Amino acid sequence: MKQKIYNLLEKGAHGKRFNLIFDYFIMSLIILSVISIVLESIAEINAEYGYYLRVFNGISIVIFSIEYLLRVYVSDLIFPTNSRIKSALKFIFSPYGLVDLLAILPFYLPLFFKIDLRFLRTLRLMRFLRILKINRYDHSFKLIWDVIKEKKSELGVTGFVTFLTLLVASFLVYHVEGDAQPEQFPNVLESFWWAICTLTTVGYGDIYPVTGLGKTIGGIIALLGIGIVALPTGIVSAGFISKVQERKNTMSNNTHNCPHCGKEILHLPKKE
Amino acid sequence: MKQKIYNLLEKGAHGKRFNLIFDYFIMSLIILSVISIVLESIAEINAEYGYYLRVFNGISIVIFSIEYLLRVYVSDLIFPTNSRIKSALKFIFSPYGLVDLLAILPFYLPLFFKIDLRFLRTLRLMRFLRILKINRYDHSFKLIWDVIKEKKSELGVTGFVTFLTLLVASFLVYHVEGDAQPEQFPNVLESFWWAICTLTTVGYGDIYPVTGLGKTIGGIIALLGIGIVALPTGIVSAGFISKVQERKNTMSNNTHNCPHCGKEILHLPKKE
Amino acid sequence: MKQKIYNLLEKGAHGKRFNLIFDYFIMSLIILSVISIVLESIAEINAEYGYYLRVFNGISIVIFSIEYLLRVYVSDLIFPTNSRIKSALKFIFSPYGLVDLLAILPFYLPLFFKIDLRFLRTLRLMRFLRILKINRYDHSFKLIWDVIKEKKSELGVTGFVTFLTLLVASFLVYHVEGDAQPEQFPNVLESFWWAICTLTTVGYGDIYPVTGLGKTIGGIIALLGIGIVALPTGIVSAGFISKVQERKNTMSNNTHNCPHCGKEILHLPKKE
Amino acid sequence: MKQKIYNLLEKGAHGKRFNLIFDYFIMSLIILSVISIVLESIAEINAEYGYYLRVFNGISIVIFSIEYLLRVYVSDLIFPTNSRIKSALKFIFSPYGLVDLLAILPFYLPLFFKIDLRFLRTLRLMRFLRILKINRYDHSFKLIWDVIKEKKSELGVTGFVTFLTLLVASFLVYHVEGDAQPEQFPNVLESFWWAICTLTTVGYGDIYPVTGLGKTIGGIIALLGIGIVALPTGIVSAGFISKVQERKNTMSNNTHNCPHCGKEILHLPKKE
Repeated sequence: MKQKIYNLLEKGAHGKRFNLIFDYFIMSLIILSVISIVLESIAEINAEYGYYLRVFNGISIVIFSIEYLLRVYVSDLIFPTNSRIKSALKFIFSPYGLVDLLAILPFYLPLFFKIDLRFLRTLRLMRFLRILKINRYDHSFKLIWDVIKEKKSELGVTGFVTFLTLLVASFLVYHVEGDAQPEQFPNVLESFWWAICTLTTVGYGDIYPVTGLGKTIGGIIALLGIGIVALPTGIVSAGFISKVQERKNTMSNNTHNCPHCGKEILHLPKKE
Repeated sequence: MKQKIYNLLEKGAHGKRFNLIFDYFIMSLIILSVISIVLESIAEINAEYGYYLRVFNGISIVIFSIEYLLRVYVSDLIFPTNSRIKSALKFIFSPYGLVDLLAILPFYLPLFFKIDLRFLRTLRLMRFLRILKINRYDHSFKLIWDVIKEKKSELGVTGFVTFLTLLVASFLVYHVEGDAQPEQFPNVLESFWWAICTLTTVGYGDIYPVTGLGKTIGGIIALLGIGIVALPTGIVSAGFISKVQERKNTMSNNTHNCPHCGKEILHLPKKE
Repeated sequence: MKQKIYNLLEKGAHGKRFNLIFDYFIMSLIILSVISIVLESIAEINAEYGYYLRVFNGISIVIFSIEYLLRVYVSDLIFPTNSRIKSALKFIFSPYGLVDLLAILPFYLPLFFKIDLRFLRTLRLMRFLRILKINRYDHSFKLIWDVIKEKKSELGVTGFVTFLTLLVASFLVYHVEGDAQPEQFPNVLESFWWAICTLTTVGYGDIYPVTGLGKTIGGIIALLGIGIVALPTGIVSAGFISKVQERKNTMSNNTHNCPHCGKEILHLPKKE
Repeated sequence: MKQKIYNLLEKGAHGKRFNLIFDYFIMSLIILSVISIVLESIAEINAEYGYYLRVFNGISIVIFSIEYLLRVYVSDLIFPTNSRIKSALKFIFSPYGLVDLLAILPFYLPLFFKIDLRFLRTLRLMRFLRILKINRYDHSFKLIWDVIKEKKSELGVTGFVTFLTLLVASFLVYHVEGDAQPEQFPNVLESFWWAICTLTTVGYGDIYPVTGLGKTIGGIIALLGIGIVALPTGIVSAGFISKVQERKNTMSNNTHNCPHCGKEILHLPKKE
C-alpha cells in the first residue's frame, strides 16, 4: 500500500503511467488554483463568481493537504537510510517540501497574517521544472545556478559597490534637490527610491531632479547605470563561457590513436 | 511557358536579368503597399488622398494574388520530386508561402475579421533577406537563429524564472499597494502589468508604488531586472563565442601527421 | 615657407613644440566655440553677453577658415604622390577634411539653411582622438570600429528584425488601442513612436496602452526588448573576444626552442 | 603600548581576538552612524528623536576622531621604512586614510560648507571589504578593478563617442523642438539632460519630443542607446574572459618535457 502511494507520488521521474496522470492532475490543479486567486482579485469577477472560486479554492486546499500528508507519510521511502522521523523532517525541510507547506499553510493560519499569503502557492509552479522530466531543463537550471554560484563573490562586490553608489547619490541629491522640491525629496529614503529608479533606468517620472546640479547628479547616475549593467553581464558571460569550455574539454576525451599504426598519440605536431 | 514563369519568379538567386527586375518590382510594391496602409491610418492624409490609396491598395492586391497563384502553379518545378498537389501544398505551407498568403488573405476575408489584418503584409518584407541574395545576410540570420536554438533550454529556464518572479511580485505589490492605490492596483492582473514595466525598466509612470513597502518591492524588482538582462545576454554571448570558435576550428582544416609513422591523419578516431 | 606651415599643421604626430602649441590652441578654440554656442542658446546669458559671444564666434570662424585654407594649401605635402588638385580634393573629402569644412560652412551659407547648423562644429571635437597622440586611443578606436565592421551583417540582421518587430507591433497596437485612445494612438506613425519607446525601455509615459490587449502587446514588446539588447551585446562580445585572442596569437610567436638542447619544439607533449 | 594599539587597529587581517571585536565595533558604529543621518533627514523622526540622534552623532564623531588620531600615531608601524612624518602623510593620503578623514572632517568644518557633508562617512562602508577578511572579496574587487583598468582606453573611447552623440543630439533636438516646446527645451543644456535621459533609456517623462522630427531624433537616440550598452558590455566581457583564461593558464602549471632530450622545461624562451 505505502509502496503504491510512493510510486504514485514520487516515481514520476521514471514515467509510470498512473504517476504521470497524477502529476499532470496536480500540476493542472496548481495552475487553476493560481488562476483562481488572480481572478478572485478582480472585483467584477469576484462579485459574480466569488462563491465558486472560494469553493474551488477550498477543494484544492483539501487535495494539496492530503497530497502533502501522503508525501510526509512515504518520506521514509525517499530517504531510506534515515529513521522514520528524520526522513519526515528531511522531506519537510527540503526545498520542495517547504514550498508545498507554504502553499497550504496560509489557509490554516489566516488569523496570524493580515496579508493574504495564498499567492505563495505560485511557488509550486517550480514543480514544472521537475514534472517536465526532460533532463535538459534541469541541466540548464543547474548550469545557470552554477554560474551564479561560481561568480557570487564578483557579483556580490558589484552589488555592494552599486549599493554604496546609490547611498552616496541619494545623500547628494537630497541635499541638492531637497530645498527646490521638498515634496519630492523630503528625506534620504525617498531620494534612495529615486536613485534606484534612475540607476536601473526605470524612470517612472514620479520624482526627478529639476535643479541644474540635481540633473547633473541624475545624469551621472544614469550613465553609471550602464556600467552597473555591463559589469554583471560581463561577469556572467565569462562564467557561461568557461563552463561551456570546461564541458567541451571533458567531453572530447583528448587522447587519440593513429588510424594508420594504432599507437596512442598525445600531441599532434602541425602538418609540415 | 511554365519554365519561363518559373525562371522569372524563382531563379532569382542566380541573377537572371528579367528576374532581377521582377524581384525589385515586387519588393518596391511591398514597400509602397506597407507605406500606403501607414498613410491611410493618418486621418488628414486619408481625408485627402484616401481614394488613391485604396485604388493603389486594390491594384497591389491583384498583383500579389496573381504572383501567388503563379508561384503555386510553378511549385512543381521548385519541388520536382513531389506530385503536382503535394508540391503545391509544400509551397503553400512553406514559411514564405504562408507569409505570401497572409499578405493577400485579409483582403478576401474582411467579413471574418473585425480587426484590419492588412498589416500582415509587412511580414513580406522578410523577402528582403532573400532578395539581397548576398549569402552573408542569410548566413548571419542562420547564425543568430542557431545560437538561439542551441541555447533555447537555458533561455527557456531564464524566461520561466522571470515569469515566476513577475507573478510573485504582482501578488505581493497587489496586497501592499492595493489599499493605498485601489485605482492603480485594482487587481493582480494590473499589478502584473506594473511588474513587467518595472522589471524590463520601461517605467511609463502610469502605475508606481507609493507606500514604503511597495517601493521596497519595486526597487528589488528593478534591481532584479539587471540580472534578467545579464543572464540571457551572458547565455547568448557564450553561444556566439562557441559558434565562432567552432567555425574557426572547421576552417583551419586541422590536418596532422602521425608523429610515429608520418602519415597524414584527416580524422582522429576517439581512443577505444 | 609651405614646409613650415605643413610642419605646424600636420607634423603634430611627431611632437614638434610649436606644432603642439598650435594644436592645443585650435583644440581650445573648438571647445570654447562649442561652449559659446551652448551659452548663446540660454536666453538669460544671450541677453547679457550675446554681443561678446557673437564676436567670439566671428573670430573663431575666421581662424577656422584660415586654418582650413592652409590645410588645403599644404595638402600636396600630406599626399605627395598626387597632383596639386587631386591632393587638395583628397584632403577635402577625407573624414577630417569634411568635418573641418562642416564646421565653417554653416557660417557662409546661413541663407540656405533655416536650422542653425553651427553645432556641426562639435564634430571637430573628434580631433581630440588625433591630438591626444597617444596611440592607445587610436588603437582602441580602431579595435571598436573593426569589431562593428566585422559583425556588421549580424548587427544588420538584428536591426532588420528589430525594425520588423516595431512595425508589426505598431500596426497591432494601433488597431487595439486606436479606439480607446484616439488622442494617443491616432495613426500607425504615432504607434511606431510608442513601439520604439517601449522596445528600448525608454518609457517616457506620454503614450501607453490602457486596454488589456494593448497591455499584453506592450508587455511582450518590453520583454522582447531584453532580447534586442542581449543579441547585439552577445554579437559584440564575441567580436571583442575573438579580436583579443587573434592579437594574443600574433603576439606569442608560437615557436619555441628547447632551453636544454636548442632544438626547435613545435608541440610540447604534456609532462608524464 | 604603541605596538598594542597597532595590533588592535591594524593586525585585523590576522584574526586576533580583541582586534576582531574592535573591528566589529567600529563597523557597527559606521553603519549606525549612517542610519542615524538617514533617520535625521526624516522630518517626523527628527522632530521626536532628533536630540538623541544628534547626541549619538556627536559620540560617534568623538570615537572616529580618536580612532583616526591613533591610526596616524601608529602609522610608522604600518610603513616601517619611512620617517615619522613621511609615514603619517603616507597613511593620511592612502585611500583608506582619506576616507577616514572625510568621515570626520565635515563635523569640524561646518562653517565652510553650506551643504551637509556628513554623508561622506558612507564611504567608510568600504571598510567592509577589508573587514570581511575573506580574501575572496578583495580578490574579486581586484579582478573587477583590473578589468576596468585594462580596458580603460576602450571604455574611454566609448565614453567620448557617447558624449559627442549626446552633444550633437542635444543641438539637433534643441533646434527641432525649441519652437514647439520652448518651456521644455529652452536651451541646449536642457536638451542635453533630455538626451542623457533618452540614451540611457531612463525616460522620466518630464521632457519628451512632440514634433515628428523630434520623435525621429528621439527614436534614433533611444536605439543608439542599445549600442551604448552593448559596446561597454562587450568590452568588459572580453576583459573578464581573458582574465579568467590567464589565471587558468597560470594555475595549470604548464610543465613540459622536451620531446628531443626528455628534460623538464619550465619556461620556454621565445624563438630567436
